[in-house]
Amino acid sequence: MRAMFKELNPPSRVLMGPGPSDVHPRVLKAMATPLIGHLDPSFLQIMNETMELMRTVFETKNELTLAMSGTGSSGMETVFVNLLEPGDKVVIGVNGLFGERMVDVAERCGAEVIRIEASWGDIIRPEQVEEVLQEHAGVKAVAVVHAETSTGALQPLSEISQLVHEHEALLIVDAVTSLGGVKVGIDENEVDACYSGTQKCISAPPGLSPVTFSRRAAEAMAKRKSKVQSWYLDLSMIQNYWGQERFYHHTAPISMNYALREALRIVMEEGLENTWERHWKLGRALQSGLEGMGLSLHVAENIRLPQLTSVYIPDGVEDTLVRKQLLEQYGIEIGGGLGALKGKVWRVGLMGFSCQPRNVLLFLAALEEVLAQQGAHVRRGEGRTIAAEIIQK
Amino acid sequence: MRAMFKELNPPSRVLMGPGPSDVHPRVLKAMATPLIGHLDPSFLQIMNETMELMRTVFETKNELTLAMSGTGSSGMETVFVNLLEPGDKVVIGVNGLFGERMVDVAERCGAEVIRIEASWGDIIRPEQVEEVLQEHAGVKAVAVVHAETSTGALQPLSEISQLVHEHEALLIVDAVTSLGGVKVGIDENEVDACYSGTQKCISAPPGLSPVTFSRRAAEAMAKRKSKVQSWYLDLSMIQNYWGQERFYHHTAPISMNYALREALRIVMEEGLENTWERHWKLGRALQSGLEGMGLSLHVAENIRLPQLTSVYIPDGVEDTLVRKQLLEQYGIEIGGGLGALKGKVWRVGLMGFSCQPRNVLLFLAALEEVLAQQGAHVRRGEGRTIAAEIIQK
Repeated sequence: MRAMFKELNPPSRVLMGPGPSDVHPRVLKAMATPLIGHLDPSFLQIMNETMELMRTVFETKNELTLAMSGTGSSGMETVFVNLLEPGDKVVIGVNGLFGERMVDVAERCGAEVIRIEASWGDIIRPEQVEEVLQEHAGVKAVAVVHAETSTGALQPLSEISQLVHEHEALLIVDAVTSLGGVKVGIDENEVDACYSGTQKCISAPPGLSPVTFSRRAAEAMAKRKSKVQSWYLDLSMIQNYWGQERFYHHTAPISMNYALREALRIVMEEGLENTWERHWKLGRALQSGLEGMGLSLHVAENIRLPQLTSVYIPDGVEDTLVRKQLLEQYGIEIGGGLGALKGKVWRVGLMGFSCQPRNVLLFLAALEEVLAQQGAHVRRGEGRTIAAEIIQK
Repeated sequence: MRAMFKELNPPSRVLMGPGPSDVHPRVLKAMATPLIGHLDPSFLQIMNETMELMRTVFETKNELTLAMSGTGSSGMETVFVNLLEPGDKVVIGVNGLFGERMVDVAERCGAEVIRIEASWGDIIRPEQVEEVLQEHAGVKAVAVVHAETSTGALQPLSEISQLVHEHEALLIVDAVTSLGGVKVGIDENEVDACYSGTQKCISAPPGLSPVTFSRRAAEAMAKRKSKVQSWYLDLSMIQNYWGQERFYHHTAPISMNYALREALRIVMEEGLENTWERHWKLGRALQSGLEGMGLSLHVAENIRLPQLTSVYIPDGVEDTLVRKQLLEQYGIEIGGGLGALKGKVWRVGLMGFSCQPRNVLLFLAALEEVLAQQGAHVRRGEGRTIAAEIIQK
């Protein structure tokens, strides 16, 4: 019994879906660096530097800022299992798939979940949060998704944050798709617990989840009466490995930490504000280009993310065939719709290293050709002209 | 606020601790391969091939064989949270740190844990298992550590397996350090649930955990009354992503899967039995070499692992100073003792790509020099001569 397969030889892709994004060659090179041990003094130095870089990109002074050894969803679970105990009340904003996922995770912690709903593509309004907090006493935390990857909506944080803290609750934010693409501002927005991923606007491969916790959140965790239900994600132990004690918990994914450090170094070299500006500019170019072609966007302009765009599939056009042709003919990956938006929208990402002028132009050109092949009515060339004007400004 | 750090430049190491082990250049090269999406048909093909390779190295036909998106400890948690429900009885063999860890994880699942103890360095005896199973009715599972990384003891499985199945319980095996180093034989030993790591004898970087489940275990999971407490590790959803449905659960760590596939390909090229033979031969060379120097080993010969050796620290020698000198002067990493063995033993690994004749000789020579510097009585040259004889046979 011996399974034999050929040399690894994946096709060349331009990753313009909802993540992973393309990875900079410098990050790939970092991944190929020979390993050192997870308790090697040199690795502990690398961890310290990565923590400092994460603090910078999160815009926080939070000491408890580290990378969990799993993908973004493990970061979500980390936040909920560490902050919540059975019976705790948590308010969760549900305006897309990742809000739904937070509900599922929180319920598995035995928490009492109070949902605030908005339609997919819309955002949670401060009035909704206020109403719920007035109605329910003793809410421990309120959770919202900063950048809903299933829709492309950008959730404003500051007003909600103020309300949450007036009611002495903790603010939990999902920043998986926002971090490194738009301003998250952990300290400025007084976010108490936040998790992100590496494979969106940070453009490292998937496999780690940067998380950060305020002092208030750390105090809440210290007051727990029960053990955290997950051993693997128990911060009371993990922070002893990332902190001064360097106490062994589990073997950190060495190469992934190499990659995250290099990806964050690249963000720092460009500068955080320049990075956001690039995402905003090219997102606008792409979105104006799609509208210029005659297509419609799902999310209203004032709450629309630059790094992830939901565009309606034109009538009479077959969702999967278009995505298949983009992938097979041009090597371009975009995402399909999820949940109620399945078959109705495509999700186009411009994240991190994928967020480049040439990708905007390439995608608009390729989509135009593929749609034309299917006989869809698109205004030829107009979208690209509009996009190019924005890019060249 | 902009954190700036220099180019990644870790020191060159020879990894001879309890893991991670050195990674083959071909695996490093695979890590540097540009990414494709986690739902790309080409990635699904890579996943299928990796599953087939994992089945071969586990020696199983189990359909439910996949890699969890976390390190070996996440695989441990996966097995317990999916198999156990609150109130379930589980028998756990504790003869080292990783047995203790299983107890901790199982208790967090709300399980009733019945411990079987053996001293650190010893193994769990079939008579102990039989006694406990006769005493306690309705035990759902019995768990043992195949290769105790904290001691270097190799747990025989076949007799215990027979007893466990006579009592209609499931057999859980921790094969983190054994898989790819010594025979695990999932089907032959009728193991129902097993987890491993990538960074030991498979010699891929840490970050994934291969797991496998028998049909019996799959049936037990299908009969659960409650949701799995971990969303991230819930196999009822994850198997839909790895299985025919290809239903999105979380973003798989693409690059880590590239690496695991390549590392397993290397194992297959050598051949599983040849790989075991290399570990046994070089382990014996190292162990005989250490005894030839005048040092003593912690684990009895008949239950001693080849890939991890616990050697007593000679009297009057300072544990951390020796490890520091090995690391700083020769770039060799070995491990210290854990728990009751802290300061009493060193743990020397010969795992996967680190298990090479030159490393045996290098380590014996380096240890001899460092011990001599500290004035310890070692027989100069004798250990190496014995080791070289075994290697050259």
